[in-house]
Amino acid sequence: MANFKGHALPGSFFLIVGLWWSVKYPLKYFHQKGKRRQLSRNYERLEIIEAAIRTLLPVIGILAEQFVPDGPHLHLYSEHEWIKLMNWQHSTMYLFFAISGITDMLTYLVSHVPLGVDRLVMAVAAFNEGFLFYHHVHNRPPLDQFIHSLLLCAVFGGALSIFLEVILRDNIVLELFRTSLVILQGTWFWQIGFVLFPPFGGPQWDQEDHANLMFITMCFCWHYLAALCIVAVNYSLVHCLLTRLKRRREGEIIGIQELKSDTTYQKALLNGSDESRM
Amino acid sequence: MANFKGHALPGSFFLIVGLWWSVKYPLKYFHQKGKRRQLSRNYERLEIIEAAIRTLLPVIGILAEQFVPDGPHLHLYSEHEWIKLMNWQHSTMYLFFAISGITDMLTYLVSHVPLGVDRLVMAVAAFNEGFLFYHHVHNRPPLDQFIHSLLLCAVFGGALSIFLEVILRDNIVLELFRTSLVILQGTWFWQIGFVLFPPFGGPQWDQEDHANLMFITMCFCWHYLAALCIVAVNYSLVHCLLTRLKRRREGEIIGIQELKSDTTYQKALLNGSDESRM
Amino acid sequence: MANFKGHALPGSFFLIVGLWWSVKYPLKYFHQKGKRRQLSRNYERLEIIEAAIRTLLPVIGILAEQFVPDGPHLHLYSEHEWIKLMNWQHSTMYLFFAISGITDMLTYLVSHVPLGVDRLVMAVAAFNEGFLFYHHVHNRPPLDQFIHSLLLCAVFGGALSIFLEVILRDNIVLELFRTSLVILQGTWFWQIGFVLFPPFGGPQWDQEDHANLMFITMCFCWHYLAALCIVAVNYSLVHCLLTRLKRRREGEIIGIQELKSDTTYQKALLNGSDESRM
Amino acid sequence: MANFKGHALPGSFFLIVGLWWSVKYPLKYFHQKGKRRQLSRNYERLEIIEAAIRTLLPVIGILAEQFVPDGPHLHLYSEHEWIKLMNWQHSTMYLFFAISGITDMLTYLVSHVPLGVDRLVMAVAAFNEGFLFYHHVHNRPPLDQFIHSLLLCAVFGGALSIFLEVILRDNIVLELFRTSLVILQGTWFWQIGFVLFPPFGGPQWDQEDHANLMFITMCFCWHYLAALCIVAVNYSLVHCLLTRLKRRREGEIIGIQELKSDTTYQKALLNGSDESRM
Repeated sequence: MANFKGHALPGSFFLIVGLWWSVKYPLKYFHQKGKRRQLSRNYERLEIIEAAIRTLLPVIGILAEQFVPDGPHLHLYSEHEWIKLMNWQHSTMYLFFAISGITDMLTYLVSHVPLGVDRLVMAVAAFNEGFLFYHHVHNRPPLDQFIHSLLLCAVFGGALSIFLEVILRDNIVLELFRTSLVILQGTWFWQIGFVLFPPFGGPQWDQEDHANLMFITMCFCWHYLAALCIVAVNYSLVHCLLTRLKRRREGEIIGIQELKSDTTYQKALLNGSDESRM
Repeated sequence: MANFKGHALPGSFFLIVGLWWSVKYPLKYFHQKGKRRQLSRNYERLEIIEAAIRTLLPVIGILAEQFVPDGPHLHLYSEHEWIKLMNWQHSTMYLFFAISGITDMLTYLVSHVPLGVDRLVMAVAAFNEGFLFYHHVHNRPPLDQFIHSLLLCAVFGGALSIFLEVILRDNIVLELFRTSLVILQGTWFWQIGFVLFPPFGGPQWDQEDHANLMFITMCFCWHYLAALCIVAVNYSLVHCLLTRLKRRREGEIIGIQELKSDTTYQKALLNGSDESRM
Repeated sequence: MANFKGHALPGSFFLIVGLWWSVKYPLKYFHQKGKRRQLSRNYERLEIIEAAIRTLLPVIGILAEQFVPDGPHLHLYSEHEWIKLMNWQHSTMYLFFAISGITDMLTYLVSHVPLGVDRLVMAVAAFNEGFLFYHHVHNRPPLDQFIHSLLLCAVFGGALSIFLEVILRDNIVLELFRTSLVILQGTWFWQIGFVLFPPFGGPQWDQEDHANLMFITMCFCWHYLAALCIVAVNYSLVHCLLTRLKRRREGEIIGIQELKSDTTYQKALLNGSDESRM
Repeated sequence: MANFKGHALPGSFFLIVGLWWSVKYPLKYFHQKGKRRQLSRNYERLEIIEAAIRTLLPVIGILAEQFVPDGPHLHLYSEHEWIKLMNWQHSTMYLFFAISGITDMLTYLVSHVPLGVDRLVMAVAAFNEGFLFYHHVHNRPPLDQFIHSLLLCAVFGGALSIFLEVILRDNIVLELFRTSLVILQGTWFWQIGFVLFPPFGGPQWDQEDHANLMFITMCFCWHYLAALCIVAVNYSLVHCLLTRLKRRREGEIIGIQELKSDTTYQKALLNGSDESRM
């Protein structure tokens, strides 16, 4: 949908997933390092819930694209004309991400799905988004075209990185890279919305001004910097939290042990024997 | 051949190979997982037959391109003019796939051919197809040019993925990816035929309409979605079939064993001895 | 800054880093080969100092870009106009390299930062430089545009190679390759300065002459040749130095041992006993 | 040099190297398989000779480019004009291949050169050739431009494949792929010579005819097919030769052993003892 909401919606979806990943992957990484494998069952449940949500969000997107007042309402062709192809293309993008979510669910629910298929389908979904965007923006004013095409860097870079994960699964660096690119997409969709359809009724941007293009390019870099910072901050927060939790638990254990040895000592005293020193 | 049949023929070839692969690779994967290696001899025979068919199909294609009534009949140059270069280019594409088939056969028949050469030649054949297509579509109307160029995504993506298999042989995810891209090519050739040369005499598509281009882009994505679904369904069918076969065989074995122990017990009874318990 | 100093500054920065790396990586490589691991503590300190300098240099760059007399002095937008976007873009490039330096420092100072993140952020910084340069040079005369675009080869090639190091860490060949590309960037920035803004008041180059473009292309290759030679020479020097140091140290050890055994022998003589032969 | 000889010379160089490689790599592969490691010393000598020749050939090329009657004779700039930049660019291409040869020699002669640097420099030489060719062919007639640009496929494909060998050294498939691409370059240089400068005084090709472009594209594919066949035939010949040699040697050994046992038996008979059966 070529309005502010039509960009805020996918932006929010990407942000939700990106922020969640920036918490999940550090968590998983620290747990694997600590070799506490007893949490694997819970992780699996978590992954299934995540995949379900990553299926649900695009479905909401599809419904919104199809059934907004000026949407195609599932009509594709009538009276020798294609109906609302923009909305149909957006629906197709959402659809691939929904398929990716379903594949993720299947990977964890059905044991005979080969590992890596989930990453492959996710890479395909990202590539597909880029592919449609690339052919999407012809015949538009320069700024509109340019601001969308910047997205392609994040999308194709992400697709490549995810495809690498087919081979190099569970590589924390690639996972954090993917996370940062997803957050970048999220914030950039919001930025596109603010630039092309100022929500608070400000003046329109001059679509032909070269200075605007230059600023937008630089702004894209700043967004990525922000995305990197968000990932770094969340990574550190997760680390601090886990360290504190660990200390408190160990503190309790030590406390209990001290309590125990105290009691043993008192008993030994009462018994008048040297048992406790043995 | 610039007509419906000329696109239906390669489309069918790709579909045959793609559908077969969508059965073969899951079969191989599940067998390898179950470590029933006694089937390897049969597999080898199967691979040779497959390679022979993958050699035969392009040969049929070459013969069709050369000896259709308006074909070049193996004449390349006469009276200072190149003859039917379109057909010659198509023949060249087929030729490389035939070479790929022959290489596959040699890999299994001749022991000193290094593993991976078959994948390399297949990647070369795919790249060659894309290379010729890329230089093939100049000076054509926009829709014709565009609908062929979409194929390049599938072809070059496939070439890259097959090249990866030189290094990462027997990776089920890459094999399924390749399979899905081959099916995509198959269905897309049919689609091109239907769009550019409507076989049932419908009205021609407007070659200049931007909406048509937009629809075709999206349609390509849907084709890939269909290809993914076909691969997924066949994968599941193969899994179900193997599981049922395994159960029945195990059932029979248990039945036979029960029968055996019954007979032994009866014999023991008849003989009035305790042999069977020893 | 579109003048000679504005190119000499980043050129010097890249040269400093490149020349240092062309000494550091051979040193590290030979030490790892000799398995003298006791130096690892010193190496870590060295890496932190290097990272600090690689943070400091871009900060100097940013300050220079912002606070030169005709700089933006941290003003981005006023009176409905973007202010000095060129300088802002340069600042952004520097900023990413500063972030890369900080990440390197954190990798060595903070133990829970996953290995490889430093390389990822460095690759991002290089990509970001190329990305901004790519969108930077529109609307300029051909030679200006071309001489900057040649830089993209070195930048994107470097970004790819550094990204590979995320997976293949401590590969000496990739490290030397990176080093040579950084030196190339350094000398090329100086070359750009000399061509576009002749510092000694020579005649301007003809921006439209095709022969100039051809020479510049070839000149770029020669610069890379020079960079390769610098890396090779420094590599050999480091090797010679280490070999000589090793020999001298061994010589001393042998000398000390000879001295020792002499003394022992004399003592033995004095004592009139056979202790020393036990 | 823009004449027939100027294309026949590099073509011959590439063909010599390519044909030699198509013999060397199968030889090396079969020897490594048979684990006859005693040949490694000879191999090293062979590699050094090969590297020396691969240094010598480009040096001949440089001398030819510089000192042909209409060459620049090492003058680069005089009277405010660049002199014969074409020849200088060709010299630069040759120079990089010479550097690659020298690096190969050093890798085998000097033990402290890290393995893989030879492949890196070879990849750089190939990339450099493509880089100069890419910027080389502007402002030429379409057929001239196109026939040279086809070379880029072989050159950049080769550069990528050689770069992969930095990581995956001694992979026979990559080595054969490289070999086939070098042969392709060799034959294609000859083809360019024949098309652009018919040596036997035939009629010029029409540089603007689209059919010529189409034929040339297809012809390039046929050249690669021929290159693949040459590699395959040489591979088989090497295999046959080695098998026959092995059989003859084993035959001799068996013969000698038979002779030996015969003599022993006769001795035993003469001695009238059962020694030989012990």
